[in-house]
Amino acid sequence: MALIVQKYGGTSVGSVDRILNVAQRIKKTCEAGNQVVAVVSAMGGVTDKLIGLANEINQNPAERELDVLLATGEQQSIALVSMALHSLGIDAVSCTGRQAGVVTIGSHTKGKIDKIEANYVKDNLNAGRVVIVAGFQGVREDGLIHTLGRGGSDLSAIAIAHAVGADLCQILTDVDGVYTCDPRVVKDAKKINTISYDEMLELASSGAKVMQSRSVEFASKYGVVFEVRSSLNDNPGTIVCAENDSMETVVIRGVSIERNQARITVTGIPDKPGNSAQIFTALSEAEVNVDMIVSNNTHEGLARHSFTVSDSDLAKALASIQGLLPDISSEAEVLTEAGMAKLSVVGIGMKSHSGVAAKMFDVLGKAGINIGLITTSEIKISVSLDAAKADLAANVIHEAFDLKS
Amino acid sequence: MALIVQKYGGTSVGSVDRILNVAQRIKKTCEAGNQVVAVVSAMGGVTDKLIGLANEINQNPAERELDVLLATGEQQSIALVSMALHSLGIDAVSCTGRQAGVVTIGSHTKGKIDKIEANYVKDNLNAGRVVIVAGFQGVREDGLIHTLGRGGSDLSAIAIAHAVGADLCQILTDVDGVYTCDPRVVKDAKKINTISYDEMLELASSGAKVMQSRSVEFASKYGVVFEVRSSLNDNPGTIVCAENDSMETVVIRGVSIERNQARITVTGIPDKPGNSAQIFTALSEAEVNVDMIVSNNTHEGLARHSFTVSDSDLAKALASIQGLLPDISSEAEVLTEAGMAKLSVVGIGMKSHSGVAAKMFDVLGKAGINIGLITTSEIKISVSLDAAKADLAANVIHEAFDLKS
Repeated sequence: MALIVQKYGGTSVGSVDRILNVAQRIKKTCEAGNQVVAVVSAMGGVTDKLIGLANEINQNPAERELDVLLATGEQQSIALVSMALHSLGIDAVSCTGRQAGVVTIGSHTKGKIDKIEANYVKDNLNAGRVVIVAGFQGVREDGLIHTLGRGGSDLSAIAIAHAVGADLCQILTDVDGVYTCDPRVVKDAKKINTISYDEMLELASSGAKVMQSRSVEFASKYGVVFEVRSSLNDNPGTIVCAENDSMETVVIRGVSIERNQARITVTGIPDKPGNSAQIFTALSEAEVNVDMIVSNNTHEGLARHSFTVSDSDLAKALASIQGLLPDISSEAEVLTEAGMAKLSVVGIGMKSHSGVAAKMFDVLGKAGINIGLITTSEIKISVSLDAAKADLAANVIHEAFDLKS
Repeated sequence: MALIVQKYGGTSVGSVDRILNVAQRIKKTCEAGNQVVAVVSAMGGVTDKLIGLANEINQNPAERELDVLLATGEQQSIALVSMALHSLGIDAVSCTGRQAGVVTIGSHTKGKIDKIEANYVKDNLNAGRVVIVAGFQGVREDGLIHTLGRGGSDLSAIAIAHAVGADLCQILTDVDGVYTCDPRVVKDAKKINTISYDEMLELASSGAKVMQSRSVEFASKYGVVFEVRSSLNDNPGTIVCAENDSMETVVIRGVSIERNQARITVTGIPDKPGNSAQIFTALSEAEVNVDMIVSNNTHEGLARHSFTVSDSDLAKALASIQGLLPDISSEAEVLTEAGMAKLSVVGIGMKSHSGVAAKMFDVLGKAGINIGLITTSEIKISVSLDAAKADLAANVIHEAFDLKS
């Protein structure tokens, strides 16, 4: 008998029929001889509707009250999923975040899980019940209701899997798993059977939005093995786990694309301590997320910084830098280029295989694709390029590294 | 500075505009120099929608899960009302039933308030905040969410008023107060300024459905003075408080009508111990609420029971008695009469004024209205009569006892 934690997102519980489907799926998992904890999100659309209501009443609603409001979405789901299980003759109980012992820290609407006191969940499992837990929520030490922000339900599922010592945590979603590349871009993209936490993290941070990074980081930190799979079929998904030797035989695990990127280049900055910090501090204060950063300096003692931001942040970024430059130097200049994409190849095999970057640049060059910025980590190489060439680039790389086989 | 508890029902918080109105009203109460605790219901329609959803999923949803589901309605309201107050510059915090310390006992969906540990509410009041409490809900000692059943929000308000030592508890509703009779029936019905708990209870149990009896009983037990008034205007309402001497100068406080009644008469029952009990036990087991009961026996040693039930229970009541009679006596017979109404006059002044019943019967007789059953309590006289004559009866009695002045 295995103990399985299953996470069902808002789409999976988005209607009465879908809730009944989720119940059927949980029932099947039980009948296969497993104990089940199901972590559920709010019914699709409910959270947005509540946020809309809040904004109609107050354009800047207090986050303490947003937490109280939004937590009701998951609370409704747990009750309804439990009722659906009862209608199939399965003994089940609902647990709010509080009842599941999810203790959080941090500011409202951006909770972090501090610990999970899972006695109530365990007692109910031991009594032979399925336990339905509200994702995305917990309670602070001061007793206030707390939500976990984006990707919170995945995080709840992984943290609860750890707390109850689950044998497996399944993240049930609307995709079949993690692919070598987005199948809409590369037709023969292949589902990855097993991927390491680090690769999953690099893919997530490079635009493959299957899961938020924070959930993968949590799983990695506590060694929680999880599987990303579809709630719509019985296909096996992608297992995410710690790196092992056999994984290194695959050089590249996947290719990801992040679109809507812009490049900003600041030139002519006197190369002395503090000048660069000033620029990136200004961007941070303007709440601009800076991604790829490439810096260099010239023989004349002038520094040059290039970096990428999302297209939607470009105007804000530009304004914050231009306000700064006159104080730094009359020589300083800003250049921008919108309509870029970031393409990344990820794989822990890179660590032991040389020549990956060379092969990648060669392939792109032969396809006539010009590369802008390049950044690398131990298991990832990212390049910025013209967004119009991104799909072509992904295809030639996918082919060159033989990812379809 | 007074401490006022205000209760706003589902209609009062039924839309964004109405929530903003409630916030304005609370603000005005604060600006008049008062501390305010507001107890709110779920937005009108929300509870019914949730019950509908539950029934679609499971025709007989578990009551534990219904509590989890329904409690979200009030939780949404408290967050939204708090946000609305913030938009008016008023410092306010929401409290779920749990946070307000409402500890309950009893079975799910039918919670009773056991005690209120109001420290969190008091601390926030002392910090200068308005506190918005979710009505209709509490938490059991075992930590489970618990709703209070019909009239639960009124009960929450009165119990919280007691717990925080409020100077006044206002039940804000869609009527201006308690009237001498339903103004739709008697045109010159008058709003009652002050009424005793007992009179209010007798009126409530006689069809004047301003509040559920349980809330009035709670207020009476703990001496909580409350006012029933409109949330739509600033008219003073009806103060409900303990009986005092001046109240007795008014003989009759009000007239109420309960329609859709049926009369059942069982005759020819051998008058020996146990036979009557058998009949009323059968009715109770069939979950028929029996109201007025009049029993008598004949010189021949046969008993005769007449009683009223609601029209909708008539078939069920009849079936349960007919199944029983062959065992009791071949002489026994059941007669029924549907389309009846119960008319009651209520007033603590009756205790010290004689002749009320005589005057009432005389007035009805002169108006050509035949009386069926008659029952009396210390402060109430009820008669059953033809439903078609109920409005006429109310008017002639209202006139005869000069209730309009």
